Amino acid sequence: MGDTQTAAIYRGKKTFTVEEVPAATPGPGEVAVRIAYCGICGTDMHVFHGNMDARVGFERVIGHEMSGTIDAVGEGVDGFTPGQKAVVRPLDHCGDCPACKAGHQHVCHKLKFLGLDTNGAMQEVWVVPAHTIHVLPDDLKLDHAALIEPVAVACHDVRLSGLKAGEDVVVIGGGPIGILVAMVARDAGGKVVVSEVNRTRLAIAQKLGFDTVNPADCDLKAEIDARTGNKGADVVFEVSGTQPGVDAMTAVAATRARIVMVAIHAQKPQIDLFQFFWRELQLIGARVYEPEDYEKAIAIVSAGGVDADTVITDVAPLADIQKAFEDLDRSPTALKSLIKVGG
Amino acid sequence: MGDTQTAAIYRGKKTFTVEEVPAATPGPGEVAVRIAYCGICGTDMHVFHGNMDARVGFERVIGHEMSGTIDAVGEGVDGFTPGQKAVVRPLDHCGDCPACKAGHQHVCHKLKFLGLDTNGAMQEVWVVPAHTIHVLPDDLKLDHAALIEPVAVACHDVRLSGLKAGEDVVVIGGGPIGILVAMVARDAGGKVVVSEVNRTRLAIAQKLGFDTVNPADCDLKAEIDARTGNKGADVVFEVSGTQPGVDAMTAVAATRARIVMVAIHAQKPQIDLFQFFWRELQLIGARVYEPEDYEKAIAIVSAGGVDADTVITDVAPLADIQKAFEDLDRSPTALKSLIKVGG
Ligand SMILES: [Zn+2]
Ligand SMILES: [Zn+2]
Ligand SMILES: [Zn+2]
Ligand SMILES: [Zn+2]
Repeated sequence: MGDTQTAAIYRGKKTFTVEEVPAATPGPGEVAVRIAYCGICGTDMHVFHGNMDARVGFERVIGHEMSGTIDAVGEGVDGFTPGQKAVVRPLDHCGDCPACKAGHQHVCHKLKFLGLDTNGAMQEVWVVPAHTIHVLPDDLKLDHAALIEPVAVACHDVRLSGLKAGEDVVVIGGGPIGILVAMVARDAGGKVVVSEVNRTRLAIAQKLGFDTVNPADCDLKAEIDARTGNKGADVVFEVSGTQPGVDAMTAVAATRARIVMVAIHAQKPQIDLFQFFWRELQLIGARVYEPEDYEKAIAIVSAGGVDADTVITDVAPLADIQKAFEDLDRSPTALKSLIKVGG
Repeated sequence: MGDTQTAAIYRGKKTFTVEEVPAATPGPGEVAVRIAYCGICGTDMHVFHGNMDARVGFERVIGHEMSGTIDAVGEGVDGFTPGQKAVVRPLDHCGDCPACKAGHQHVCHKLKFLGLDTNGAMQEVWVVPAHTIHVLPDDLKLDHAALIEPVAVACHDVRLSGLKAGEDVVVIGGGPIGILVAMVARDAGGKVVVSEVNRTRLAIAQKLGFDTVNPADCDLKAEIDARTGNKGADVVFEVSGTQPGVDAMTAVAATRARIVMVAIHAQKPQIDLFQFFWRELQLIGARVYEPEDYEKAIAIVSAGGVDADTVITDVAPLADIQKAFEDLDRSPTALKSLIKVGG
């Protein structure tokens, strides 16, 4: 490598350039990670579409769903050895806002998301604050490890739901996030039904062993009632981001169910608040992850609790990042596309 | 009394008749309570207005916010002595539905609300299932004890909020229920602000020692931010049942705040779900009460944690029930009107 490294830079207008840039070295409190793989997130696709230009600008290396190895550690950093496999929890908090002071650093009011607000993992070596590093087991495959970030999102969602083994779960929306939530909920002992209208996604969910319902073809509430002795779902994950999804979340919920709001609702949907009162439902907002969710995700991916080889549908080298984004944008069947950054 | 007793019967069209009816005696598993006082609930006012005719019919004795003394106990009932002061938790559950089986009898799918689905407390002697009785301390005044039922609602709301001493609380809506929620939240150590647009209600809340904000006159969020160092409220009670109240509940909430849905929203309001995701808010539906909420309410009313003499704004004899409902319907300043049933 020497003094330069290869990086993919978002230049606006659905365009990445792959360039040689100066190699970064870790400063005090920092760690340099040699990137192996970096997944393409829905957020990265939003960047590609130009929806986040004001936030990321046109000189940004994006990417945060990564895996790699410790390359070098900066002054004052202990506990890491070059060569160790690692992932980065890409959140940097201010330490001073009301959320940080209350111990909720992951929803810091001035949160920096690494790979959006700073440069990210679509480059050979990524320098990050040491507190963001999670070391991996030696035998974890690095392509599988690139799923740890999105699996950690699902672990956070499932943890906040309080899901207990044997409870009935409905996941509304069977896209990449919904499928990972479904897998983590199943791993926790939940009896999971995936509700999805897209037939390609339904087929993938079925291939992954999930009971599915297409609410375009039948009455979702009746289907869930039939499966649960008219009780309804103990836990509901709303991942669709749609008004029908919001209607369904209260309809399928059991009395005292917990509904986790995973989706981003840019509009303000109408909600059946009477059902919240009448049946004492709970709605739980869940965003990103906390360190324990990362540890849980590492454990689940290590133990094969997520079917990584089915979830990873494409792998392309960094040099082909432009084509990888274009392909993913057009593909109806892709779940997770990885960029192979190193090697 | 002998073989008859006096009862007020709802006859439809905003009309009660006060009549002599056959005296009831407790059957197996039942207790007869001699009623001292019975408060007029918002639900009773809905009955008066004809909104619940299909449910209650035209031969119904209503009333459930009562106090009294044990009069007689039926076969197989232990633990009660005639003359003991008592209140009734007016819920009878089926024991067999999914909610009952999960231990949530108070939101039973076939819940009978005593005094709506059965005859209630606007009569001299009320026969109820023994499991609904809570015995009171001897020295608790029976007019104050008639507040226990609505205070138990507030105790349930506050308990489900998980309110801790020192937390910032906003109560949206300063009517009779909102004021009791504010009192119970204050009793639990909350720093309470009452938001209300009605000037008469604002004056009552201020008289009761609450910090108040009129969102028609100022920016409620700015006011709450100023009082909380820009943190927002840790706990919000939405008691208004209005779209502006629903807008305010997310606006004033701190990151990770708990919002308790106390109000009945017959419409489906629009909710800022993005805030639930972004700041990990929780929405908690709360309905009626569980036995421990009754015990807590008894303790609070006994200890003077609720300013009963200010909350009870009118007392009228059972013979004047018609006028009492008509007066309450017109009064802008009334909080709680009691009917003095016995003596
Ligand atoms: Zn992501
Ligand atoms: Zn912060
Ligand atoms: Zn009531
Ligand atoms: Zn039941």
